[in-house]
Amino acid sequence: MKYEKKIYFDHAATAPLLKEAKAAMEPFLGEDFENPASGYTPAAKCREAVENARGQMAYFMRARPEEIFFTSGGTESDNWAIRGAVELEKKRGNHIITTQIEHPAVLNTCKYLEKQGCRVTYLPVDHRGVVSVEDVKNAITAETVLISVMYANNEVGTIEPVRAIGRVAAAAGILFHVDAVQAFGQISIFPESMGIDLMSISGHKFGGPKGIGALYVNRQVPFGPLIFGGGQESGMRSGTTNVPGIVGMAAAASQWNRNRERWNRSERRIRDYFVRRALKEIPGATLTGSAENRLSGNAHITIPASNGIECIRALDERGIMASTGSACSTGRKKISHVLLAMGYPEEADYAALRFTFGPENTPEEVDEALEVLKSL
Amino acid sequence: MKYEKKIYFDHAATAPLLKEAKAAMEPFLGEDFENPASGYTPAAKCREAVENARGQMAYFMRARPEEIFFTSGGTESDNWAIRGAVELEKKRGNHIITTQIEHPAVLNTCKYLEKQGCRVTYLPVDHRGVVSVEDVKNAITAETVLISVMYANNEVGTIEPVRAIGRVAAAAGILFHVDAVQAFGQISIFPESMGIDLMSISGHKFGGPKGIGALYVNRQVPFGPLIFGGGQESGMRSGTTNVPGIVGMAAAASQWNRNRERWNRSERRIRDYFVRRALKEIPGATLTGSAENRLSGNAHITIPASNGIECIRALDERGIMASTGSACSTGRKKISHVLLAMGYPEEADYAALRFTFGPENTPEEVDEALEVLKSL
Repeated sequence: MKYEKKIYFDHAATAPLLKEAKAAMEPFLGEDFENPASGYTPAAKCREAVENARGQMAYFMRARPEEIFFTSGGTESDNWAIRGAVELEKKRGNHIITTQIEHPAVLNTCKYLEKQGCRVTYLPVDHRGVVSVEDVKNAITAETVLISVMYANNEVGTIEPVRAIGRVAAAAGILFHVDAVQAFGQISIFPESMGIDLMSISGHKFGGPKGIGALYVNRQVPFGPLIFGGGQESGMRSGTTNVPGIVGMAAAASQWNRNRERWNRSERRIRDYFVRRALKEIPGATLTGSAENRLSGNAHITIPASNGIECIRALDERGIMASTGSACSTGRKKISHVLLAMGYPEEADYAALRFTFGPENTPEEVDEALEVLKSL
Repeated sequence: MKYEKKIYFDHAATAPLLKEAKAAMEPFLGEDFENPASGYTPAAKCREAVENARGQMAYFMRARPEEIFFTSGGTESDNWAIRGAVELEKKRGNHIITTQIEHPAVLNTCKYLEKQGCRVTYLPVDHRGVVSVEDVKNAITAETVLISVMYANNEVGTIEPVRAIGRVAAAAGILFHVDAVQAFGQISIFPESMGIDLMSISGHKFGGPKGIGALYVNRQVPFGPLIFGGGQESGMRSGTTNVPGIVGMAAAASQWNRNRERWNRSERRIRDYFVRRALKEIPGATLTGSAENRLSGNAHITIPASNGIECIRALDERGIMASTGSACSTGRKKISHVLLAMGYPEEADYAALRFTFGPENTPEEVDEALEVLKSL
């Protein structure tokens, strides 16, 4: 690599592992390696670490420990939530309501279920990427068994009216799943108070390790497992417990819980600085989505350029990491499904760029990125 | 804890993380934290690390890299293999052949599928825990779509006649899944040469980290995913790639590949020493399973005692870790489904003890354990 340091503006793709998360994991990658399901004393230490982590995660959500189930990540949580809800309610109906801007983990699970005979309504969004609560209400039929709407969009950062949709779902007696993968950590979310029955989170999006996530399942929902086996996670998610992963995720969540206000403020300051200068100094640059109603670290802009990937390359040559949209599908050249749903034309003559900031980013780093973008 | 050091005789529950695996993971828990799906240069390093790991895993199995798919562990691999096979072949039939001594990840997936309308034959085993190839052949019907037999049993260590069953499956044109979770590493397995279409492995069973595993899928099997989303793993297993987990698993597999003969010999020596002395010095002690045809590190004995859990406690007080059977279901008091299938009576008046040794165990450690067991 030709540059001397990395400048990381892609926290929505994955966040650096927080040092507190790494430190929390260390013993369980070393001396305390036992299987928490074993009967001897050293295994009890692993079991306690896992249950402490569950208690912390529950506390941060104002949930109960028995409502938190550890999974391998946000994608598994989304798959499980949706398939679990459909299986649970199969005698009642087979209609799912979701949006056009969900993460592929939701959209592709829905597409799979369509082939299995489910009917899925993919609601549109407005130009800022917001789904209409009225649309959700109007889409409900007697067959509707699940509403799945993301807390905040992973590309444009728009925050959805989850609380209002939760009220609609509760009034209709329909299960409500929220993909909070991009929001959790950044935002403190109390699912029960928002009418959320099922909520997916992912450790590595907020400074925990990769390969770990959780699904919140409201205790009143008689949910079943997606993965069967030895009966771990109260029989809800079998497989040897990933102790370091769980402990690392809880430690990262704890850091966010402790520093949220300060970190959000810092992210927002950097983000606003970037957006203000970009819109002023790059001819034709525009902000995508809402100016206010978005994640504190998310900036998404379009600039007149033939190709977003070329912008990313020019930044990359200076050691600056940003994204053309989401990191979930490499090498994509077309406009994303999110921008398409927001009304952007399919064959774009502009580049879409996502900068997602973390608490450690500085104005000097933004200056470097703008220098590159202005030179294109 | 009252003891000064740990003596670990429960490698089948989980193995200590090998230092080479830990070292391989380190960069990806630190500086190289990027999402391998991202477009910038530093992410390419993560991508290359993952593809190198895939290449290594494939090499160790004499498979092709495109036949290796990373999962969250052995349990997910088993679930995926079985549900994937049933879904793939649903137009042909819905009958599964497996054994009574499989891991709960296989058995409970089969039980779930029975509720969905599948028919499952659970073949018996003999007193040593071996399934009969003839029984497999005789169980095949026109409706049979999958044969699933473990490579080696996790409790008693018995190795199944996988190669012969592979020939039966191939002759009948039926998919063959092998749960190799307990065997892989200890044994080098070349699935294609044994007629195996699908093979599950788990990282933490051979010195890799928890939360990572793989499914081998023969390239001629047009398999589909269990987990849908962003399209990672060639669309076969979505979810942000667990780079440290994958790299750590491959490093552990590499250590086993390099040291297998020596480590097996060492395990066998310790195991045989333990078994020889136990059978001689503990009145009424007997070996479970086969004396020869078993994993090199596995000793499974029964001794006249009211309760296996009490034995484990007595050992625990001296810092010695062993198991009453499998670690997959805590607090179990009844005889395991494996011993039951092997013809042991359900209400046992003896204790079943599993000692699973690793290459680092010593005769002095065995001496300590025997001292405790003899005193009971």
